[in-house]
Amino acid sequence: MSQKIVGVKASAGVAIGKAFLLTAPEMEIKTVAVEDAASEVLRFEEALERAKADLQQIVLRVEKEMGAEQADIFRAHLMVLEDPELVDTVKGKITEEKTNAESALNDVAQMFISLFEQMDNDYMRERAADIRDVTKRVLAYLLGVNFFQPGSLTEEVIIVAEDLTPSDTAQLDRRYVKGFVTDIGGRTSHSAIMARSLEIPAVVGTQTITSAVTPSTLVILDGHEGVVILDPSEEEIAFYTKKQAEYAEQKAELEKLVHVPTITADQHHVELAANIGSPADVAGALANGAEGVGLFRTEFLYMGRDDFPTEEEQYLAYKQVLESMGEKPVVIRTLDIGGDKHLSYLDMPEEMNPFLGYRAIRLCLDRQELFRTQLRALLRASAHGNLKIMFPMIATLEEFLEAKAILEEEKKGLQNSGVAVSERIEVGIMIEIPAAAMMADVFAQEVDFFSIGTNDLIQYTMAADRMNERVAYLYQPYHPAVLRLLRNVIEAGHSQGKWVGMCGEMAGDPVAIPILLGLGLDEFSMSASSILPARKQISQLSRAEMAQHIDAILQMGTSAQVEAYVKETILKEDI
Amino acid sequence: MSQKIVGVKASAGVAIGKAFLLTAPEMEIKTVAVEDAASEVLRFEEALERAKADLQQIVLRVEKEMGAEQADIFRAHLMVLEDPELVDTVKGKITEEKTNAESALNDVAQMFISLFEQMDNDYMRERAADIRDVTKRVLAYLLGVNFFQPGSLTEEVIIVAEDLTPSDTAQLDRRYVKGFVTDIGGRTSHSAIMARSLEIPAVVGTQTITSAVTPSTLVILDGHEGVVILDPSEEEIAFYTKKQAEYAEQKAELEKLVHVPTITADQHHVELAANIGSPADVAGALANGAEGVGLFRTEFLYMGRDDFPTEEEQYLAYKQVLESMGEKPVVIRTLDIGGDKHLSYLDMPEEMNPFLGYRAIRLCLDRQELFRTQLRALLRASAHGNLKIMFPMIATLEEFLEAKAILEEEKKGLQNSGVAVSERIEVGIMIEIPAAAMMADVFAQEVDFFSIGTNDLIQYTMAADRMNERVAYLYQPYHPAVLRLLRNVIEAGHSQGKWVGMCGEMAGDPVAIPILLGLGLDEFSMSASSILPARKQISQLSRAEMAQHIDAILQMGTSAQVEAYVKETILKEDI
Repeated sequence: MSQKIVGVKASAGVAIGKAFLLTAPEMEIKTVAVEDAASEVLRFEEALERAKADLQQIVLRVEKEMGAEQADIFRAHLMVLEDPELVDTVKGKITEEKTNAESALNDVAQMFISLFEQMDNDYMRERAADIRDVTKRVLAYLLGVNFFQPGSLTEEVIIVAEDLTPSDTAQLDRRYVKGFVTDIGGRTSHSAIMARSLEIPAVVGTQTITSAVTPSTLVILDGHEGVVILDPSEEEIAFYTKKQAEYAEQKAELEKLVHVPTITADQHHVELAANIGSPADVAGALANGAEGVGLFRTEFLYMGRDDFPTEEEQYLAYKQVLESMGEKPVVIRTLDIGGDKHLSYLDMPEEMNPFLGYRAIRLCLDRQELFRTQLRALLRASAHGNLKIMFPMIATLEEFLEAKAILEEEKKGLQNSGVAVSERIEVGIMIEIPAAAMMADVFAQEVDFFSIGTNDLIQYTMAADRMNERVAYLYQPYHPAVLRLLRNVIEAGHSQGKWVGMCGEMAGDPVAIPILLGLGLDEFSMSASSILPARKQISQLSRAEMAQHIDAILQMGTSAQVEAYVKETILKEDI
Repeated sequence: MSQKIVGVKASAGVAIGKAFLLTAPEMEIKTVAVEDAASEVLRFEEALERAKADLQQIVLRVEKEMGAEQADIFRAHLMVLEDPELVDTVKGKITEEKTNAESALNDVAQMFISLFEQMDNDYMRERAADIRDVTKRVLAYLLGVNFFQPGSLTEEVIIVAEDLTPSDTAQLDRRYVKGFVTDIGGRTSHSAIMARSLEIPAVVGTQTITSAVTPSTLVILDGHEGVVILDPSEEEIAFYTKKQAEYAEQKAELEKLVHVPTITADQHHVELAANIGSPADVAGALANGAEGVGLFRTEFLYMGRDDFPTEEEQYLAYKQVLESMGEKPVVIRTLDIGGDKHLSYLDMPEEMNPFLGYRAIRLCLDRQELFRTQLRALLRASAHGNLKIMFPMIATLEEFLEAKAILEEEKKGLQNSGVAVSERIEVGIMIEIPAAAMMADVFAQEVDFFSIGTNDLIQYTMAADRMNERVAYLYQPYHPAVLRLLRNVIEAGHSQGKWVGMCGEMAGDPVAIPILLGLGLDEFSMSASSILPARKQISQLSRAEMAQHIDAILQMGTSAQVEAYVKETILKEDI
């Protein structure tokens, strides 16, 4: 008889195939005294270098195949291996205690891991997972143990594992791996994020899958429902084969929308753009029908390196994106470092509340040399496309005026040197601080556009760090307080004839889209994979009709009321 | 000839007198090997106990004479001496390294001090200062060195010192100490805060005063201007004697307002209330003419102890405040722990952004046993006065409704047991999160009152931690975004017939007061020492006239414009 196991939906799609049980390699760490500590340090350094070389390869491949955000995971791994606190402590231990490299590395890594794991905070726990993953890689080289070799697969399988590290997931070969199921993990774990980006169906957090299957068990995996069926019956196979075909058909339907503009049922055009993290993401954005880039995060240029990127390096990256997008608009955000993003080569203060601290435009106006370098690179690149420049974390009018003045200065400087600069660059701001949302009427007189960064705006409006799981329930995109701020911003922009976009996760959320349309949002920027579903949804919605719901929605008292109203009255879902 | 030295205004008033040069006792720390580590540990423990006994005395005296906020400084010192991380490390060092207690303590303390000082953050640096102060006290006992004995003063002097620790300042005898001047320190250093609370004129941060005076130099100290004059001329002495008399006269004028209600020039009554931190603060509040308590912070009951206060302990404290205030209203805020306030006996998660984290009502709704204990104590105390209960950090309507329901449950429970509970307890919320300010119309239908907590509201609205000096410039009380939120809250409250108060520092600020009056604020709650000046200012302002300025002010773009407008147009200052 068949057996049904329920887990967490991690990545949509249906897969049917034989289980491939992936077990972690045995790595027994013995502590051995060494005579020649210097050559033991050398052995450690060699293993380190081989692990780094692997990771550099993975970064390149992942960036190309999956995009910058996924590649950042491995950049973070590289940074762990380059962290002197870890590396020097291991070497010191080898030298002082005359102990073998495996044992020294394992001890030091465990210390860091337990330090980070004690912190009751998802972000820190992810760092612990990073260290664990990367340590395993170095230990495997030291011990001469073989890692899972994805190349060894020669038939279609469904991978079953206790957990998949980001490295495991990155190495999955889509030709053979039809899906995966794990015992642990949640919807936002790295492996789940990567599965969605690879479009591999996946169910995680089943708790029991590894003990329930044997190699070659026939498995059906339904990533829509988070369900796994072992040894399915004929009827079940037939049912899920049909479901698989329907899903493929839906995808094909969406594919037809790639080159179609986004038009509401009542014939209004809105722009659906992509959020990207590096030039490598442009191909995916275009393949998914992006009408522009609504947010190019420039941090990737600064991360995983030893020094600031030069003006030339930045210029080439910006130019590449602008040229690839042709006449389509490209909104590039100036550096948003600080908060939870740090650079190893930039000395930053320890802050008690980094999200309320020295970051983004605050840092750039203070450290003008790095801001000016980026602005010059942007201005030079502007000749190659349709560039719009956006300043992040603007709280006061003074900040915008100062940033704009610096931009103008650099522009004059370049023009005086005979450098070509576009004359039509729009200059706008992120609205992600409540003060800016409240003052949108004043800002609208000065800027060319607004782009609402809902991730931060919601955090500040609710005074709740969404990375902190104890208060994550207060991260409420549909909260009427947030929606009222959005209305204020959109109305203020329109009253001065300025367009208003949104580049937070909310812009691609099917429950939020009807509200945003009703509020009059002009541009929706989202991850590339959300564009086609959003286009389809919007084509079925009337903007005028959505606008009629707004007054009722903004008078509601709670986020739960808004969500229920949209689902029942607009989306007609049974809830 | 006389010499003039300029420093930082720390506490208002003029003093004329002979300098008393206070030098820190010489404490030379030698490292000596000890044979009997166990008895050395005992010696350390004895010194620790003597220092703790001193501090417990100081806490009691300071709480009585200066109030709870000042006493908290010494509670923090006591906590340093009770911190196992410090104490056990010192003992371990004595035992393992067979070293003397002075050297072990000094080394360990220096390690902690340099750790905290590296953090680029005022709050952490204050912690370093705490450790330094408290270590000195223990070292003095170990070394048998005499500390400054305030009792040794027998004539009126002006204290001159490199720096005054909080302990030094707390021990100043107002009969003899007419003022003090220091080389280092700023307006918000502990010694400056204590000087204001003791009403001792003070100038700090002069950099050179200790090298410029000799014992018995005649000194004039002008705390209004931050100026010190050494060896003054006859004319200077005459000038400052007159100024001193004028200041005394102004104070006497203000004293006349103690029992007068606060009435605007156009005959509107507003309520001026005091913020208090413990029952000991009530006397000062009444002496300064408070018409009520607008904010009783209940955290003091929980701090500097080993376990939660019992219901009975809390009941007695609340009852004492209510009885002392008679029929005057007393707004008691339920526990606001978390953020930067921790309890040694309450296990709290490490948070990346504690100000956006698990604190106040979020914690109380999660840890209901401690919330219910406090609510029962409040309900029982309600029979003894005019109690209003206020919930802090409310972000959503659900939170308020849940807290209110718990309160009702506990009330029913008490009544069923025959306990007397007042039937007229008002229940309100702090408005300190932007979401609550935006949704004030919805909340106004449910609550009995609002009290605006501007300290946090400004931080969240501007997304800037005011304790972080790199972004402290963004803490802008006059920012139009903040003022617009205030208008929204006050109008929403009034439209439902609910009163609206404010208990942040802004309520006592002479530049903010005309705006708040114009916005229609009903209750201003502030530190006791600000009440009489505020009453005088309000008596000279017409509320109707102030209201006419509001539209113009709320259309301004920046905080600087608002401040300049109020100063020029309303306060008629030359700026």
